[in-house]
Amino acid sequence: MIKVTIWNEYEHERKIPAIYEVYPEGIHGALKNGFKTESDLIVRCATLDEPEQGLPEEILADTDVLIWWSHARQEDVTDETVERVIRHIHSGMGFIALHSAHYSKIFRRLMGTPCTLSWRHGDSEKLFCANPAHPIAQGVPACIDIPEEELYGEPFSIPNPDDVVFLGWFAGGAVFRSGCTFTRGYGKIFYFQPGHEEAPVYEHPDIRRILINAVRWAAPTTRLPAPPDNVAL
Amino acid sequence: MIKVTIWNEYEHERKIPAIYEVYPEGIHGALKNGFKTESDLIVRCATLDEPEQGLPEEILADTDVLIWWSHARQEDVTDETVERVIRHIHSGMGFIALHSAHYSKIFRRLMGTPCTLSWRHGDSEKLFCANPAHPIAQGVPACIDIPEEELYGEPFSIPNPDDVVFLGWFAGGAVFRSGCTFTRGYGKIFYFQPGHEEAPVYEHPDIRRILINAVRWAAPTTRLPAPPDNVAL
Amino acid sequence: MIKVTIWNEYEHERKIPAIYEVYPEGIHGALKNGFKTESDLIVRCATLDEPEQGLPEEILADTDVLIWWSHARQEDVTDETVERVIRHIHSGMGFIALHSAHYSKIFRRLMGTPCTLSWRHGDSEKLFCANPAHPIAQGVPACIDIPEEELYGEPFSIPNPDDVVFLGWFAGGAVFRSGCTFTRGYGKIFYFQPGHEEAPVYEHPDIRRILINAVRWAAPTTRLPAPPDNVAL
Amino acid sequence: MIKVTIWNEYEHERKIPAIYEVYPEGIHGALKNGFKTESDLIVRCATLDEPEQGLPEEILADTDVLIWWSHARQEDVTDETVERVIRHIHSGMGFIALHSAHYSKIFRRLMGTPCTLSWRHGDSEKLFCANPAHPIAQGVPACIDIPEEELYGEPFSIPNPDDVVFLGWFAGGAVFRSGCTFTRGYGKIFYFQPGHEEAPVYEHPDIRRILINAVRWAAPTTRLPAPPDNVAL
Repeated sequence: MIKVTIWNEYEHERKIPAIYEVYPEGIHGALKNGFKTESDLIVRCATLDEPEQGLPEEILADTDVLIWWSHARQEDVTDETVERVIRHIHSGMGFIALHSAHYSKIFRRLMGTPCTLSWRHGDSEKLFCANPAHPIAQGVPACIDIPEEELYGEPFSIPNPDDVVFLGWFAGGAVFRSGCTFTRGYGKIFYFQPGHEEAPVYEHPDIRRILINAVRWAAPTTRLPAPPDNVAL
Repeated sequence: MIKVTIWNEYEHERKIPAIYEVYPEGIHGALKNGFKTESDLIVRCATLDEPEQGLPEEILADTDVLIWWSHARQEDVTDETVERVIRHIHSGMGFIALHSAHYSKIFRRLMGTPCTLSWRHGDSEKLFCANPAHPIAQGVPACIDIPEEELYGEPFSIPNPDDVVFLGWFAGGAVFRSGCTFTRGYGKIFYFQPGHEEAPVYEHPDIRRILINAVRWAAPTTRLPAPPDNVAL
Repeated sequence: MIKVTIWNEYEHERKIPAIYEVYPEGIHGALKNGFKTESDLIVRCATLDEPEQGLPEEILADTDVLIWWSHARQEDVTDETVERVIRHIHSGMGFIALHSAHYSKIFRRLMGTPCTLSWRHGDSEKLFCANPAHPIAQGVPACIDIPEEELYGEPFSIPNPDDVVFLGWFAGGAVFRSGCTFTRGYGKIFYFQPGHEEAPVYEHPDIRRILINAVRWAAPTTRLPAPPDNVAL
Repeated sequence: MIKVTIWNEYEHERKIPAIYEVYPEGIHGALKNGFKTESDLIVRCATLDEPEQGLPEEILADTDVLIWWSHARQEDVTDETVERVIRHIHSGMGFIALHSAHYSKIFRRLMGTPCTLSWRHGDSEKLFCANPAHPIAQGVPACIDIPEEELYGEPFSIPNPDDVVFLGWFAGGAVFRSGCTFTRGYGKIFYFQPGHEEAPVYEHPDIRRILINAVRWAAPTTRLPAPPDNVAL
């Protein structure tokens, strides 16, 4: 069994009626629904306004893969939360950063780069698979049409990924490394660009397939009680 | 000084009037013109119908960087020529494969993969820089508009490149790793997608800048008299 | 279920009594014994002197992961066999190249490099895990002592691997990228250096664990009926 | 001209007589002497006890490549200094982290990983070149003997490097990725392991050659006035 925690800042869906209508159960709720078919996954949700920002030590210790969606409240995530989450990633917890979480404190700390990009509201995307041999691409079509999606464009200031699994094409004239894997310490990381809050992207069956694959891929190979330390031989 | 040999199959420009008009001096001639401004480059041309397919041993031994454009006559390149060129690349000669040379015998042998892709005639491209720190990107704008270019689309069946320097966006709905670097033995390799024969892409000043940078980048760090061999200690 | 075919040139064990004593069932037999504990693996063996060099089309079509040990008879593998095996790898069949198979025709074709190295008879190895998050490292100790192993030393003329999972230290003064992964077409590839024929390295439980992990990792994500081809849109 | 700033914590050489004897001009002084032969390099030194920790804004703005040696005083580097230096690296300044700077705040922030390793006092190293085509390897022998060096061993908890140029072998039984390149934002980074303070490693002519090459390689391709930011199109 793989224990998944979906962590959502949960802001737009509560404050903006048009987004509430897209995701009445919250983005986390829609993501959770996408895992319902998978009997090897145990999924819970957490949101930023819960105690300890939704991620107390005991939840993280009981999480194999953490999924994070953030946008409006990047700066509200405390340094303590950042440290706690990164400690668990370095110890082996998988981490999936969605959409605007490219600019979250946690993702930027893991990358060591600005993580900046170009963007524009109101576009559509074709998501192409550039690495069909990758486990995250299993059962995923060569191209996924996302009729409504925010444009994200290169240069995306990230380190060279381990693998670029998906490349995004945007009608308005941009291209993006939309699905990338990284390893940090014992933790496997997947950044996945689709998921603007104004359209039900996380209800798309192929997007759900990708996230299911990503969770299985990111599940720990080894989980340490703490990050590795320097060892005097 | 860097010695550059531009090797062109030189077929379309001789046989098809519309392409002759685009490249009256041949694609090799247009490429050569693009290097004229650079006083550290010594450039010569070779074509497939010349003796030893234009690349006798003495020319290769006197070449720091080989540039190859091929399309209609991929199968005419003999196994002897392939072996001779690869031997020099493994020994340190740089190699730049242009456009449809993705499917040349030499490039496919260097990659070890099918090197296949999707394509469609008659499109336009926006070429985005995804790695602005790379020497090949020096002085190159963030996006280059190529008003007439053949569509090349993913999946491009290549190994993970060392660096993906450019990503191409095509109006018709495709994305491509349009500028990629590889190392094979002592040889540095750059694959560059733009350059369909029906439009004067190689006269575009930014495309010329990229090729000048690529030549300097691909020049040998070390040039051996022969490829490395197994060594019994 | 994962179908594994262990392909061995089967030469030393038949011709040299001292090696027969190490591997009386052949290297393939010892490798096969190492998979006996795993109920999700169906394992068969093939050797070079069998019809169609042990790998007729129907065997390859029924193989998820091919393991190859070769040394004395690299040149006996025909071009037809090479093509057949590479076609299946490009279509998704996993491939594990063991020890001196670094210099097999198939591995060299997949790499596109000389695949040369330094070597010396009669040494010992410490195999260190450099990427403990990798699935192939699951349950494998940080260092494995191999008391008798042939020295393999850098430079190992391969392309940059996708991941370097293991690094080898040799008492006689050499270091080697002893466990490396690659992707070629739809096929996942693992090169693993330990396994000189004069010592029972493939009976070491940790080496067996690595090979079990490697088989599961290399099993196809997608298996095509044929390698990808260029697609006119 | 390339402007190089050698930044040294300058602690051991002042406090420990035996180390003073090895490096009477400080580690920075010995490093600076190594660049004297190169007429395209303008070299200055900075140390941690100078105002603004030796690296005020105007020095960083006037530096193409920063070299950093640190060990005993990692924690004394202030967050302000870390931010200032990383801002310049993201904007294009090259960065060379030496030896125990693997555990400096700056290097760890750039990597996003623990950067931990195994170590033992009092050993010797053979430094092997694993990527002889890399510019940093130009003119460097296949193996460099360092008679006295601290043992550094895998696992080295770093992200996959862009290139692994050197691998270290230690007599006491360890192997290490001793020379690795990374890109972070517009900045090129080289981590180089040799340089324990108790032996004059930085006076070794081949080590000096590597550092000269590394400075030229890390010099900015593009230098921005500030790190890239998100861009609304």
